[in-house]
Amino acid sequence: MLCINSKQMHSVVSYGEIIDKIEEAFRIQQNGHFSMPDRIHADYKGNTLLLMPCFTPAAMGTKMVSLFPKNVNKGLPRLYGEMILNDAETGEPLALMNGAELTAIRTGAVGGVGVKYTTPADISVLGIIGTGIQGISQAVYTTMIRPIKKIVIFDRDQKSMEQFEKNYSEKFPEIPVKKADSAENLAEISEVIITATNSLTPVLPDVKDLLKGKHIIGIGSYKPDMREFPEALFKLTQTIFIDTELAKKESGDLTVPLQKGWMDEKQVVPLGKLVTGEVNIDHSSQTTLFKSVGMALFDLLTADYIYKKAKQKKIGTEVDL
Amino acid sequence: MLCINSKQMHSVVSYGEIIDKIEEAFRIQQNGHFSMPDRIHADYKGNTLLLMPCFTPAAMGTKMVSLFPKNVNKGLPRLYGEMILNDAETGEPLALMNGAELTAIRTGAVGGVGVKYTTPADISVLGIIGTGIQGISQAVYTTMIRPIKKIVIFDRDQKSMEQFEKNYSEKFPEIPVKKADSAENLAEISEVIITATNSLTPVLPDVKDLLKGKHIIGIGSYKPDMREFPEALFKLTQTIFIDTELAKKESGDLTVPLQKGWMDEKQVVPLGKLVTGEVNIDHSSQTTLFKSVGMALFDLLTADYIYKKAKQKKIGTEVDL
Repeated sequence: MLCINSKQMHSVVSYGEIIDKIEEAFRIQQNGHFSMPDRIHADYKGNTLLLMPCFTPAAMGTKMVSLFPKNVNKGLPRLYGEMILNDAETGEPLALMNGAELTAIRTGAVGGVGVKYTTPADISVLGIIGTGIQGISQAVYTTMIRPIKKIVIFDRDQKSMEQFEKNYSEKFPEIPVKKADSAENLAEISEVIITATNSLTPVLPDVKDLLKGKHIIGIGSYKPDMREFPEALFKLTQTIFIDTELAKKESGDLTVPLQKGWMDEKQVVPLGKLVTGEVNIDHSSQTTLFKSVGMALFDLLTADYIYKKAKQKKIGTEVDL
Repeated sequence: MLCINSKQMHSVVSYGEIIDKIEEAFRIQQNGHFSMPDRIHADYKGNTLLLMPCFTPAAMGTKMVSLFPKNVNKGLPRLYGEMILNDAETGEPLALMNGAELTAIRTGAVGGVGVKYTTPADISVLGIIGTGIQGISQAVYTTMIRPIKKIVIFDRDQKSMEQFEKNYSEKFPEIPVKKADSAENLAEISEVIITATNSLTPVLPDVKDLLKGKHIIGIGSYKPDMREFPEALFKLTQTIFIDTELAKKESGDLTVPLQKGWMDEKQVVPLGKLVTGEVNIDHSSQTTLFKSVGMALFDLLTADYIYKKAKQKKIGTEVDL
């Protein structure tokens, strides 16, 4: 089987190709030709292992992600991951790749697809709250999709903001990065705001006037006790787009508003319906909201494509299992 | 991380060491210091993916096994597998190894531990029904544990029997292998009988006299519609040993007898209680029965040990993920 490390994964595909694959995943999700058991959380001593298997007629694989919160104190990544890709016809293992990198790549592209379908074509100021690995990936994909002229960032961790600035500026030296003093300050300036934190309480200001007409994408909360969206947001929009139904059970950004009656389940619409054209919105004049928790189908299509390109370009290390 | 292929896995450990590890797994199971979510069956188009995560304070990992029944028509293995071992302290991936080989090794050793605790020390005639990869592994481990003088085999597939004879004789040229004409014939001659088939109907004769005083170990059935044990067996024994509670829900060898009232749930006892000495049996004079469906704890302890030995002996291929 082919082992493909994070650098190799990046080297074989372009951002645009991954965006295409994520759109394909949204279309497959709508046509129903796949099987994706609810992802499994295995918890032990405060650590979590997520298992995400998925099948389509053309691909099969499983992503494993471990989340060890105390790694941060050891100077290690909180998240490690491995993706095993199998032959859909026989089950034979085809590839092993870095699951943390895959998560960053595909989550960035899911955000990118969110930007493509929920924001006007001419937005130029992007705000990022949470400047970790996911925040950077979101910024890069958004810059690929829209004519971004300025990035505004906010994070409680100054070092993380400096790291973001360094990484982003290496890719896009001509685009200025501004560190906001507060989330209020960031919201005021930004046209689209992407939240990528592990916060337990809202990271956006709970002020209608600051959020009105903005395009909000939340990718951080993946557990019921994690929440990035404030109540004010739900007074500004009739429709909440999601990537997968599981979001309604898994993310505090939806469970809390549903429980508290800030929104009704009928207002929740799959983003896939925008991708297929089944639903249309006029995003130029209204506040939009897209909440992503991710799904194995994104990982599978992305990994399958990376594998095929790596194979074609003879990149990666073949190991005999 | 270290990639360890099937040959390398075999080369770094001995059968006796794996037996020790499986006994350790049985003891950990009894002391409760582990976390093992029920294994996940993901089914798609008649194929199955099994996901088996497990944690102990010292090790963490996930085995994935794919079962593609139609592979047989293509001359390919029905089962492929991959084991990912992670650092229990950080979640960092440590090793990838062949999950099909791991399954064969540990299932053989689980059978071996069953033989060790449910059969007299002097048994010398072993019967194997089902002569595939698992049947061979069972025979090898039993030969390591008991002074086997003769092996009797039975399988509907002549070629599989010939392959078994060839493989077994390479390892133990001094021990004769006899092909039985029927399961009845095999049962008559054998002292211990191990069944390792995917049969949907009993593979042992439903005749009390042929099974009385025999030591039976079933490792084939892992689904409710798969069954190797006939009704007669449950009239001969008061106690049915199992490796894991899940066996009562997963294997037709237990679900059917429980439903039909051939046995009571109280008769089912964990083999771990024999290993720890909490329960004792006089196996010299009675029919014994051990049903194994396997569990992730076996895979984890075996894989962790193989990894440590491979690391020590500098065997395997290091890949950067």
